[in-house]
Amino acid sequence: MKILVDAFGGDNAPLEIIKGAIDALNSNKEFVIVFLGDENILTKELANFHYESNRVEIIHAPSVISNDESPTEAFRKKRDSSIVKGLTLLNSDSQYNAFVSAGSSGAVLASAVLLLKRIKGVTRPALVPILPTLNDDSVVLIDCGANADCNAKNLLEFAYMGASYATTVLGVKNPRVGLLSNGSEDKKGNALNRDVFPLLKSANLNFIGNAEAREILTGVYDVIVTDGFSGNIALKSSEGVAIMLLSLIKKNILVGGLRAKIGYLFLKPVFKKIAHVMDYNNKGGAILLGLQKVVIKAHGSSKAKSISASIIQALTIAKSQLINNIADTIPKLKESSIDKD
Amino acid sequence: MKILVDAFGGDNAPLEIIKGAIDALNSNKEFVIVFLGDENILTKELANFHYESNRVEIIHAPSVISNDESPTEAFRKKRDSSIVKGLTLLNSDSQYNAFVSAGSSGAVLASAVLLLKRIKGVTRPALVPILPTLNDDSVVLIDCGANADCNAKNLLEFAYMGASYATTVLGVKNPRVGLLSNGSEDKKGNALNRDVFPLLKSANLNFIGNAEAREILTGVYDVIVTDGFSGNIALKSSEGVAIMLLSLIKKNILVGGLRAKIGYLFLKPVFKKIAHVMDYNNKGGAILLGLQKVVIKAHGSSKAKSISASIIQALTIAKSQLINNIADTIPKLKESSIDKD
Repeated sequence: MKILVDAFGGDNAPLEIIKGAIDALNSNKEFVIVFLGDENILTKELANFHYESNRVEIIHAPSVISNDESPTEAFRKKRDSSIVKGLTLLNSDSQYNAFVSAGSSGAVLASAVLLLKRIKGVTRPALVPILPTLNDDSVVLIDCGANADCNAKNLLEFAYMGASYATTVLGVKNPRVGLLSNGSEDKKGNALNRDVFPLLKSANLNFIGNAEAREILTGVYDVIVTDGFSGNIALKSSEGVAIMLLSLIKKNILVGGLRAKIGYLFLKPVFKKIAHVMDYNNKGGAILLGLQKVVIKAHGSSKAKSISASIIQALTIAKSQLINNIADTIPKLKESSIDKD
Repeated sequence: MKILVDAFGGDNAPLEIIKGAIDALNSNKEFVIVFLGDENILTKELANFHYESNRVEIIHAPSVISNDESPTEAFRKKRDSSIVKGLTLLNSDSQYNAFVSAGSSGAVLASAVLLLKRIKGVTRPALVPILPTLNDDSVVLIDCGANADCNAKNLLEFAYMGASYATTVLGVKNPRVGLLSNGSEDKKGNALNRDVFPLLKSANLNFIGNAEAREILTGVYDVIVTDGFSGNIALKSSEGVAIMLLSLIKKNILVGGLRAKIGYLFLKPVFKKIAHVMDYNNKGGAILLGLQKVVIKAHGSSKAKSISASIIQALTIAKSQLINNIADTIPKLKESSIDKD
């Protein structure tokens, strides 16, 4: 297995990316890392790490796409960037199994969709984070940003892809699928939800019904289906509140005097554990699901730990039957009655 | 001022409703409470409280609408319910200034929209919670559930209504308005967002631009505009994470042994303060904005404190120039170029 790693994507590139990749390499013997980025800088930085040198390769990709650039324009103009070059190689050369980047989400998405082949039957790939639940399990949130506007067919495909991921990668038997809505009753939802609800109900899925956003993390669902706009709102709202709560705790401990500081010292292991559970990046990145190759978008603020987890996640998926399983499920959709739009 | 209070709505009715209403009554001399509900039960329960008896009235409304009932069906069949009777009186009798309920959101919304007149020029009333921000201010989230499907005109009206609320009720000068989106760049958003963005840009508002969901609570915006579906997702996701975090802290303190328990005792004041800040219900309920009368929907799980806050909020709004201010802003919209759909 060869995993392409964008060494110059994200807020902490290249050092944390390199560190995370080497950590992953040293924890698992099954793969080779192929770094994309400025060859000189990479060679220099890598000299500080210990690793099996025959398991690390460098492909020179000097330009970097920033978050402010238009993704499609960057795709056209920066063919030698770590993102575009990496995804081009992933598409054209069968020795590469996956691509991991913490760089511009827009550029990774646009380039991947333009360069890579979709799984037969998939209309739109989706960006899919795996979130932690209250009962220490995971929930697949599909889509969380690849498609701001969706139709019912897209959402039905998301449901099948999400369920495939839960089964194949997370080992969940008969995953419980929920449709994100503004209430749990069957009739709740916007026009899109009302369109897709009967399709999900009659699909070959363990469809539980409408899920309120407050239930995403409860562990009642293994897969939450939604359009990329609403999924992004759910994900970012959750992040916002988690950041707000932790910053409130910090602020109030600082102004709370000696008593609060002593309390904090005693509770430190508890806070550490919670920060670990809440930081969904520890479990890896978001997968771009629906393509014939594995693409993982790690969080832009990723540090070594999260990059390492994303690389191991990419390896796990590349080794799994996920893409075949999705291909096996989706064609059945095409024959069914919903393939009208 | 006379404020109608649904004594039989919400999870803790009627006792917490009565308690909260009497607390509000005793804290402010400017109004009369008119309870709606079963007269016998109300009379019996009220005997346990101290208050000026000439400031409390009871209107017999024996039936109760549950959360499971279809709101429109309940509206038709349960005219003698506390919700329908209360809103009917609010509409027909000018001595009543506001209605407060912690009962079925669907029934309050449907009945209010069917019974009450809209402010001239308002196409759709919106449900609007006032959320706490990191810098101890408030943010107006409009809409968070009244309209699952919206067009650009609805959202533009929401922006004007939200800004009016921020100015008139919260005292914010030149409120900063953001459009909830899946990214902060101008071009981000779904089809609806792209439609309304230029309208907001050219509107007579302090429009800042697209707001990511993670920025809702940062205090960078005074008003966040969105459709009722996305707003509901944002609100409920935030609730979900807050509940998850607090329950994780509790769980880990319980299993953390003596050390964690001591830490908790020391940090108790900090946790209490945070719980108070995070509990947006302490500031009142969600207002149904766009109607000619004041309707407040308190959270279904409201206890006395939140009911009391909702009643004081209703009083504040009824005394303010909010409805006139909205009426003054919205007609200008009708003359502008956007009134095409």
